[in-house]
Amino acid sequence: MSHLSNEIHEQPEVLTRLLDRQAETAARIAAAIRARDVRYAVIAARGTSDNAARYAQYLFGALNRLPVALATPSLFSIYRTPPQLRNALVLGISQSGQSPDIVAVIEEGKRQESLTVAVTNAPDSPLAQAADHVLPLDAGEERAIAATKTYTAQLAALALLAVQLAGDGERLASLRSMPEAVKKTMALEETISTAAQRYAYATECIVLGRGYNYATAFEIALKLKELSYIAVEPYSSADFRHGPVAIVERGFPVIVVAPQGAVYPDTLALAHELAAREAELIVISEQDEPLKLARTPLRLPIALPEWLSPFTSVLPGQLLALHVTLAKGYDPDHPRGLKKITETQ
Amino acid sequence: MSHLSNEIHEQPEVLTRLLDRQAETAARIAAAIRARDVRYAVIAARGTSDNAARYAQYLFGALNRLPVALATPSLFSIYRTPPQLRNALVLGISQSGQSPDIVAVIEEGKRQESLTVAVTNAPDSPLAQAADHVLPLDAGEERAIAATKTYTAQLAALALLAVQLAGDGERLASLRSMPEAVKKTMALEETISTAAQRYAYATECIVLGRGYNYATAFEIALKLKELSYIAVEPYSSADFRHGPVAIVERGFPVIVVAPQGAVYPDTLALAHELAAREAELIVISEQDEPLKLARTPLRLPIALPEWLSPFTSVLPGQLLALHVTLAKGYDPDHPRGLKKITETQ
Repeated sequence: MSHLSNEIHEQPEVLTRLLDRQAETAARIAAAIRARDVRYAVIAARGTSDNAARYAQYLFGALNRLPVALATPSLFSIYRTPPQLRNALVLGISQSGQSPDIVAVIEEGKRQESLTVAVTNAPDSPLAQAADHVLPLDAGEERAIAATKTYTAQLAALALLAVQLAGDGERLASLRSMPEAVKKTMALEETISTAAQRYAYATECIVLGRGYNYATAFEIALKLKELSYIAVEPYSSADFRHGPVAIVERGFPVIVVAPQGAVYPDTLALAHELAAREAELIVISEQDEPLKLARTPLRLPIALPEWLSPFTSVLPGQLLALHVTLAKGYDPDHPRGLKKITETQ
Repeated sequence: MSHLSNEIHEQPEVLTRLLDRQAETAARIAAAIRARDVRYAVIAARGTSDNAARYAQYLFGALNRLPVALATPSLFSIYRTPPQLRNALVLGISQSGQSPDIVAVIEEGKRQESLTVAVTNAPDSPLAQAADHVLPLDAGEERAIAATKTYTAQLAALALLAVQLAGDGERLASLRSMPEAVKKTMALEETISTAAQRYAYATECIVLGRGYNYATAFEIALKLKELSYIAVEPYSSADFRHGPVAIVERGFPVIVVAPQGAVYPDTLALAHELAAREAELIVISEQDEPLKLARTPLRLPIALPEWLSPFTSVLPGQLLALHVTLAKGYDPDHPRGLKKITETQ
């Protein structure tokens, strides 16, 4: 078994542990946020962690009414003209906590006396040391180069923080029941390993998701790219209509992330349009209608509330990336040209 | 001649007109911003306009120290849980001013008594009517479906606003000399129309740019996708190292946007890495070193200050998209499946 496969399978356990152990930490950080005049959040992150930040944009917006700006780290690290961070909550998200540009954002937040928080799997890292508060992922060492368990752990850490900040006991209970749903979703693996054969020679692909699952589309695309080297591009269904839809012709593979929720009708309408263009649809949903449009339907066994659906809907994408990589005869633990820790300025 | 070609060539004239006519409007809006306790900006935009918003992230950050959050319109239009916009400058950017989700963000800003501004080519549009202030593009009707002149006009409108808000007369003078540089850059067209033959059968491509030219990378990628149907993905050089670099193998085409400036050393280092992987480089720069690495060097005739370089560096990309489209035998004025006005919820 590859590290990647092991770590995909570890996720229910990692999520349960994090939600048990870090609920109090998240509550403490939430109290610190409430004690300040925080009007918006700035999040610095790269790669997979940046996809977790995309989830936070919707989560903090909807649950905490907090606008979220994704930081442009080069303004801090290269241009050295950091923006004013008065009234900002400054969050750095990084598995390793090592990347100098992400650390630079937290350091500047501290210099400007903003409240700073590190979400990291490495509580002794430079990022953690620079921040006022640390929300540890507790995910254990991640040995695969492609991040999977630390991605869903980052989502869970951010969800804990949002729920505690909202003081919402009902959502906290829903969040705690989520790892069981992730576990049940693992049953899709056999279907996916068979379906993966079909995409062994695919060269391009689009992934669509919107709202909470905008992050899911980005993360599935990133896994497929870094592991299987397919040119995969993620879009929100809205942005996709503003130009890129032109690329889709007969047989063009499109992964559609379409669990139930507020954006579902919009995503479904786009799935119908794509089906009319004879695109090849790979649909991740628990709903019959989009699944029926798919050449490769990936049925989610559990319907979660929309804000929790990114935990289960990313899993078929992680498994698809793993199995397409194996189908192509590549090594999922050693993508070419990647190191586990990427240090960017 | 196609509308697209005409509109690409109109750009120096459109930019000159906008800078002449709208400098005062921008000064008035800047005064309105200064009169308020504005701590950050929220920008709502889709497609090409969203790429102009990416430019504003760096521009407002560096010139005005204003953090910029790109809005997540579905939080306003679909989820109906808009974030608090206290102390926000709320900007909507849209050529047509028609898209309901972008209008919804401005309307919510107004409801919350934030300062709202519409940057649009349609000063009678719903977006313009919803906003407190309108910064018109004055670009004339855009008849091609792929936006070119309204993109650079949006950049210019945003630059005018940033410069007036900074009260920086020197930068205003530099901005006014920019259309002349755009005009001189048009001389690259012959080189590009010849080079385009080489990419008539390309299926995938990456575009890299960072800092101010992160927007340029996105916009070049969007033009290539919507016109020539090549699967093109944009990245910042930093994000690219965090995973997607794995996709690059011998002969893989990569467009590198590398004008002089603070991020140039980082982009140059990545160009060297890609050359070592035997990628096929298409380089847009006025610098010898990256141009020498390129199979297709596109030398910018004028070196602008970095914050103005997106105006000239996008032009070779627009021309490349036009000529690759012609080389493939497609109609640049009628990309399949696109309408001029895209209304998303």
